[in-house]
Amino acid sequence: MSELVLHEYSASGNCYKVRLTAALVGKPLERREYDIMKGETRTPEFLAKVNSNGRIPVLQVGDRLIPESNAACYFVAEGSHLIPTDPFDHADMLRWMFWEQYSHEPNIATLKFWMKSLGPEQLTDQQRLQMPGKRAAGNAALKLMDDHLKAREWFVGDSISVADVCLFAYTHLAGEAEFDLERYPAVLAWIERIKADPRYRPLDA
Amino acid sequence: MSELVLHEYSASGNCYKVRLTAALVGKPLERREYDIMKGETRTPEFLAKVNSNGRIPVLQVGDRLIPESNAACYFVAEGSHLIPTDPFDHADMLRWMFWEQYSHEPNIATLKFWMKSLGPEQLTDQQRLQMPGKRAAGNAALKLMDDHLKAREWFVGDSISVADVCLFAYTHLAGEAEFDLERYPAVLAWIERIKADPRYRPLDA
Repeated sequence: MSELVLHEYSASGNCYKVRLTAALVGKPLERREYDIMKGETRTPEFLAKVNSNGRIPVLQVGDRLIPESNAACYFVAEGSHLIPTDPFDHADMLRWMFWEQYSHEPNIATLKFWMKSLGPEQLTDQQRLQMPGKRAAGNAALKLMDDHLKAREWFVGDSISVADVCLFAYTHLAGEAEFDLERYPAVLAWIERIKADPRYRPLDA
Repeated sequence: MSELVLHEYSASGNCYKVRLTAALVGKPLERREYDIMKGETRTPEFLAKVNSNGRIPVLQVGDRLIPESNAACYFVAEGSHLIPTDPFDHADMLRWMFWEQYSHEPNIATLKFWMKSLGPEQLTDQQRLQMPGKRAAGNAALKLMDDHLKAREWFVGDSISVADVCLFAYTHLAGEAEFDLERYPAVLAWIERIKADPRYRPLDA
């Protein structure tokens, strides 16, 4: 068994984050696929042995497990150029990673999942009612990113960090949730900067 | 000006997290109060000078600013006994902090805010419709914590970390959102362990 094993559903942006982090720091990752659409992360075995929260990704390190995509990215990137050493920059990186989980992912990733993976016909009334709020909050998140990137190349300091990787995953797929990225030119330019990294790896690789 | 300034609404659990972290590591914190119920974090001046996201807490370090409560806690605790040095334990701590922002705060803290701060009469139909889902997800979060704490004293490793502080803030107030903590005895025992710390400081101190 390789040192790092990723329990994942490969189409998920949260799982892609961990693969992209590993690619950018040149670490090998063994992959184990679960089909969330078939409930493979809610089986008694998965809940008992991988994550009692029933979610992917989970990073396995020997016999220990790290759920939560952004924590897994941090572990994979530890000691690399993706983790700033300055204490303020380090906290600023975490700030964007927490913001991603609270203000970005629940809007942009959730809308993408509802619209593309479940499909409009499968949505409950409650999901349908939440869509306008998530649409507005998703656009507010993209605008905040665009404003931040107007005068800078990366989210933290002057080089790429795990915060960029975590934010990239669902941002570059926002068009699939019918967000118009053309409205956010600084975000589009930042997406191209990440793709230009020689170690960049797309979601379907 | 003292080294660390907390821009806050003192009744907020997210702001209390930062104060409790500072108390537990013995760092002084200068406090600046904003009344979120009067829109004081949405003024043009606040948006321009403190946080364009219009939220508190924001930790100020000299002329630099850290929004996002859990990132601010990390900065305050850096180098102390609240941050594990083992890389796996460190990632495990972040795992619980990301989980708190994604699976705990949006359910337990939001219900508390809707029920106690806004009040049932002020809620929109959309908020009212989301309440059963948030109630179920909040209880699932408390159960996951209870299961985790059944065989251990702290969330990570064998001593208190920032993950415990971040989870404590809204968990110990969950009764105000009408969650029945008596159903989660391991959580109740953990709450008492935190309160027994000689440097513990309650929310209203």
